Amino acid sequence: MADRPQKLLTPGPTSVPPSVLRALSKPVLHHRSPDFAAVFELAQERLREVFRTENEVLVFTSSGTGAFESAVVNLLSPGDRVLAVSQGEFGERWQAMARAFGCDVVPLTYPWGEAPRPAGLREALAESGAATAFIVHSETSTGVVCDLEPLLAVCREEGVLSVVDAVSSLGAVPLETDAWGADVVVTGSQKALMTPPGLAFAAVSDRAWERTVEATLPRFYWDWARQRRAQAKRSTPFTPPTSTVVALVEALGLVLEGGLDAAFARHRALGRACRAGIKSIGLELYSPEDDSAAVLTGALTPEGIDAVELRLALRDRHGITIAGGHGDLVSRLFRIGHIGHVTIDDIAEALGAIEVELREAGADVEPGRAAPAAFEAFGSVAAAG
Amino acid sequence: MADRPQKLLTPGPTSVPPSVLRALSKPVLHHRSPDFAAVFELAQERLREVFRTENEVLVFTSSGTGAFESAVVNLLSPGDRVLAVSQGEFGERWQAMARAFGCDVVPLTYPWGEAPRPAGLREALAESGAATAFIVHSETSTGVVCDLEPLLAVCREEGVLSVVDAVSSLGAVPLETDAWGADVVVTGSQKALMTPPGLAFAAVSDRAWERTVEATLPRFYWDWARQRRAQAKRSTPFTPPTSTVVALVEALGLVLEGGLDAAFARHRALGRACRAGIKSIGLELYSPEDDSAAVLTGALTPEGIDAVELRLALRDRHGITIAGGHGDLVSRLFRIGHIGHVTIDDIAEALGAIEVELREAGADVEPGRAAPAAFEAFGSVAAAG
Repeated sequence: MADRPQKLLTPGPTSVPPSVLRALSKPVLHHRSPDFAAVFELAQERLREVFRTENEVLVFTSSGTGAFESAVVNLLSPGDRVLAVSQGEFGERWQAMARAFGCDVVPLTYPWGEAPRPAGLREALAESGAATAFIVHSETSTGVVCDLEPLLAVCREEGVLSVVDAVSSLGAVPLETDAWGADVVVTGSQKALMTPPGLAFAAVSDRAWERTVEATLPRFYWDWARQRRAQAKRSTPFTPPTSTVVALVEALGLVLEGGLDAAFARHRALGRACRAGIKSIGLELYSPEDDSAAVLTGALTPEGIDAVELRLALRDRHGITIAGGHGDLVSRLFRIGHIGHVTIDDIAEALGAIEVELREAGADVEPGRAAPAAFEAFGSVAAAG
Repeated sequence: MADRPQKLLTPGPTSVPPSVLRALSKPVLHHRSPDFAAVFELAQERLREVFRTENEVLVFTSSGTGAFESAVVNLLSPGDRVLAVSQGEFGERWQAMARAFGCDVVPLTYPWGEAPRPAGLREALAESGAATAFIVHSETSTGVVCDLEPLLAVCREEGVLSVVDAVSSLGAVPLETDAWGADVVVTGSQKALMTPPGLAFAAVSDRAWERTVEATLPRFYWDWARQRRAQAKRSTPFTPPTSTVVALVEALGLVLEGGLDAAFARHRALGRACRAGIKSIGLELYSPEDDSAAVLTGALTPEGIDAVELRLALRDRHGITIAGGHGDLVSRLFRIGHIGHVTIDDIAEALGAIEVELREAGADVEPGRAAPAAFEAFGSVAAAG
């Protein structure tokens, strides 16, 4: 293992602020102690603020996939029809999950890189007769962040319960759980919430709570009713990762202190800066070209230059970890995350290292262009407000 | 919240060594990076050593209850008959869990405080015709650690698959997964393994793997086959708590460096010391009087002295957190954990504080007896051991 600490410019887990690491390393709290109850109450309050909801936010010891599974088993019964919108790897994962639980999954699949649209959703819901829809807000495999509000409006108009994968979007881009009428919103600790992985969350609307009564899929660890009863007493039914909860409280405090809107603006500006830098190198963008791509920037290496090798070089020679691609694109696609504890200087540094390593690998690249382009795009965004 | 850090003399989460907290607070690793792959490989190696198994130890982002649920959904089908041995709160939990998944649970229930016996198990297995048995090794609610080896022998002789709850026993008392022929052994990170909560483990025998093929309960997050495929590539299917894995590697290194047998001897000696101290105060023991009670010591307050008040006084005035009781015993029972990173001085300190607070509450107790009694019992054990 390399000794050098890696700067994570990934769409999660992300590098977390020093004060969050310090909170993480405090002496362990006992989960049935008054000390933890006070911390957990604060965590719940801050989660509601970040989710922009008055409803309960359930806290699970799991990855985001676990919290999504909790939605499946609390809302559905075997044979239930689900419209599962997919525009990438995570949309496909939720389709596979619901099938594993015996649901009748109607896929609404967009090509990777495209965003779902309200008209298509309305039509598919009408055709399928599904009472539940899965929607991926930010598709981490492609960088596509969909325009969620009108999609949720369609669900409400059609009387369909919505389950939103907001794992890489919550805290990164605007998501108004209550105002937009999302029924269930799922996220994890390790992305824009700037906390190490190990916690996942599900905000649950009154409509969703009603549905749980009739849902017959078996559940115990994921049982929302048991979880809600415990959380009402500032506790959890099973031992939570108490140290990670302490870190979460610190991280959410930082997010809320700076303000969510400022965080959204910073992510948008970082996205714009990253795209400007990538273009100045002459690389092709894989993620969208507009401000919706605030979570991550995907780009393709020049033909003949291996993206896996590029990532290894960044890691070994520069201490920078970025994410890779998938399937057919593994040898060309790389993804730079810019959510959470990331600055314009981090992005400029990474772009500079990419230039150097591309030239080293034989690409026709002249180092020194990307960082200034990124700073300029970031600054003009910041000035524009 | 009290500012004073609490010493956790609880049966988990336990206080962890300083070097484990330092490992926890290193910069976050990305779960798809070569750095994490190396750490995760080491974690798997060390887990196999601690479990004393050659088989795969599956690693879940969850509490111990989650890992137990993984055993249920990977081994069983709806309607399957399960013999669920119970001698306390956790035995009851596994009965309730299997019922929630539609299994035909045959309870073999011993009174709280008693240990299950091989003859009773053999008879119950023969009568029930169950193909699966749940056994709680260390019942954390009572301090009873059963004599597991002969119980497992009965299971093997009867051709029954065994699932062992070793959440508070693994690393605390001897458990030879392979040599004793346990099929599935489940534990968590936060007890004798001296790591913060957030990780849970399941060691799986070949016989258990065969059973998974016919088991039809739906599974996705807990799917052992998916987990095994990922772990073979030094990875996990879903984002693991990478920082907690780094801490685990450090903690398991400490356990193995000292040697498991030395850890077992220390826990036995601490149990003996704690019992000697409790008796010197004139209190009634709730946990067993013999060396089997190596995980925790349960005791009752004198009549009229509230155990909840005692625990609060220990916490607020002495910075010592111990565990409480349950149900009818909540006002009398307290439990002192002595597994993991606990020394004889910690135990003597806690006993001394208990004496003072009992006298303060009006009990007929003369402080100054318990610590010497504990040191003496510990020393004579150490000398004999």
